[in-house]
Amino acid sequence: MSATTPVSGPEQLAAVLDAAGPNLRPLIERAERRLQEVAASHGRELGRHSSNTLAAGGKRLRPMLVFISAGEADSEDLVRAAAAVELLHMATLVHDDVLDRAPLRRGRATVFADGGTAAATATGDLLFSRAFAELTATGHADAVRALADATSALARGELMQREDAWSADVSRARYLERCELKTARLFEACCRLGALLGAPGAAAADALGEFGVRIGIAFQIFDDVLDVAGPVERTGKPRGTDLLDGTVTLPLIVARERDLSLLEVRVADAGEAEAVCDRIAATGALEDSRREALDHVARAKERLTALDLGARTRQALALVADGVVERYS
Amino acid sequence: MSATTPVSGPEQLAAVLDAAGPNLRPLIERAERRLQEVAASHGRELGRHSSNTLAAGGKRLRPMLVFISAGEADSEDLVRAAAAVELLHMATLVHDDVLDRAPLRRGRATVFADGGTAAATATGDLLFSRAFAELTATGHADAVRALADATSALARGELMQREDAWSADVSRARYLERCELKTARLFEACCRLGALLGAPGAAAADALGEFGVRIGIAFQIFDDVLDVAGPVERTGKPRGTDLLDGTVTLPLIVARERDLSLLEVRVADAGEAEAVCDRIAATGALEDSRREALDHVARAKERLTALDLGARTRQALALVADGVVERYS
Repeated sequence: MSATTPVSGPEQLAAVLDAAGPNLRPLIERAERRLQEVAASHGRELGRHSSNTLAAGGKRLRPMLVFISAGEADSEDLVRAAAAVELLHMATLVHDDVLDRAPLRRGRATVFADGGTAAATATGDLLFSRAFAELTATGHADAVRALADATSALARGELMQREDAWSADVSRARYLERCELKTARLFEACCRLGALLGAPGAAAADALGEFGVRIGIAFQIFDDVLDVAGPVERTGKPRGTDLLDGTVTLPLIVARERDLSLLEVRVADAGEAEAVCDRIAATGALEDSRREALDHVARAKERLTALDLGARTRQALALVADGVVERYS
Repeated sequence: MSATTPVSGPEQLAAVLDAAGPNLRPLIERAERRLQEVAASHGRELGRHSSNTLAAGGKRLRPMLVFISAGEADSEDLVRAAAAVELLHMATLVHDDVLDRAPLRRGRATVFADGGTAAATATGDLLFSRAFAELTATGHADAVRALADATSALARGELMQREDAWSADVSRARYLERCELKTARLFEACCRLGALLGAPGAAAADALGEFGVRIGIAFQIFDDVLDVAGPVERTGKPRGTDLLDGTVTLPLIVARERDLSLLEVRVADAGEAEAVCDRIAATGALEDSRREALDHVARAKERLTALDLGARTRQALALVADGVVERYS
């Protein structure tokens, strides 16, 4: 399952918006309008199928990362880049919902539920292609390359995850590689695009990209912790969904090292999944996993120190980094 | 179902290769090697999942169109463009096989059969992204745009097809629009890419693109005729697969105009599908559909007359145009 929980509560979002300066809010609104234009301009089928996906979109963390990484720059190219990363993210969600046969996302019917496998597969493909079209319109080949690399990484991460499903042999290193591919490389692309098309420029793209990778890994680890820890009333989904579809995550990997009986576990229903979540928690694996995530956040912030960024940009990025591990804490 | 039958028999292929001049064969071999490199360079999962898809690849019609449309130019950018269109085509085949739950393609196990829905969805996404990465490496924004537009069209065509499944109201115009989106726009992109990156240049891109659209539509109509007409020993698949999955094609649309009882038809198994194929053929709808395809080929060739192309290029393109409607005839 993809990391889809919001990065932060409303207070944290407000803090980021305040820190980043007056440009951010109108830019996010422009990206939102651009997404709606794209959804409305490619056939009535896309319009219908994407409206729920757009509305269920959450906090637009990835567009926000593009804009904040751009310093206080403001341009149509940045709006296009922000729309592109969100289109790509939406495409993966639509395809994920097919794989998970998910009826709802954030309380709304998924494309899969509404239109079936074929419509959802094609809708995801269409969103992918529009992401590339948006970025191509900027005329920056480096930007298109960043998106292509992120897209490939996402798909490779998905392949790895299915390859590793139900495996007793998934190492921490393999898990972290999967987090990087499946989640963090798109965060990297967001920061890289902001740098390339914004004020920091190409010279800062690598460092900002590494910042993105680190917070992306932290984001995914925290998502995986929340899947075991809950609480359900805050995450909005039952505990142990990863256990049910065989996805081996860091909490389980750590717990298995301490409780070998967990190596044999195969859960068959939600009740069993809850019970295994409790056994994982009992080993202390959740605290360890949280520490790992915090370590990635610290390393992300370290990358910022070497960069010549404005005070607002630096503070807004640090707040986003903290936000990915403070969700529900 | 996508148009996947080869454009021509071995004799026609040889004629095209002879006409196009000595560059074509080595270029096709280079594109083939590039495809193998891409498949080998993005994780062991892609390597495994794509090897059968590559091997089942048929005649590489789309790369050939890129090269022929380039006149007698020869460059690494052209090889990348040819690999890109084939990667995109492969991506759609891999996704189509998920939707059709197809166990085999050209006698080899599909990614869907080998790895399941998730692996096939992710493999298709990875092939999509590598197509864009290949083209981005050429540094030509127009080329990337052509691919993005073709990809969007493909997905829109797929959405239309599912929307129209089992419908009694599909008009000829709607069917032709679907052929254009689902099949012809990628042919257009091939020709456009050849022009942009090859000898004809940007000035010839629109006319060569229109040539591509016309032969793409003819190709799809003929594919749909073959699905009704067979013979099975030449197409390699049972007759009436479109009827079984509710895809309304030109032969059925024409036949319904003449035999209203066909409006009510819903086939449930291969035997019923064969019987309905016979009823469609009895109305003369196959001859009419073939004529429609031939008309598109004629219009494609007309587009060539206004262009300043070398004699070899013109002849090779004309042979390809004839080839799309001479398959199995």
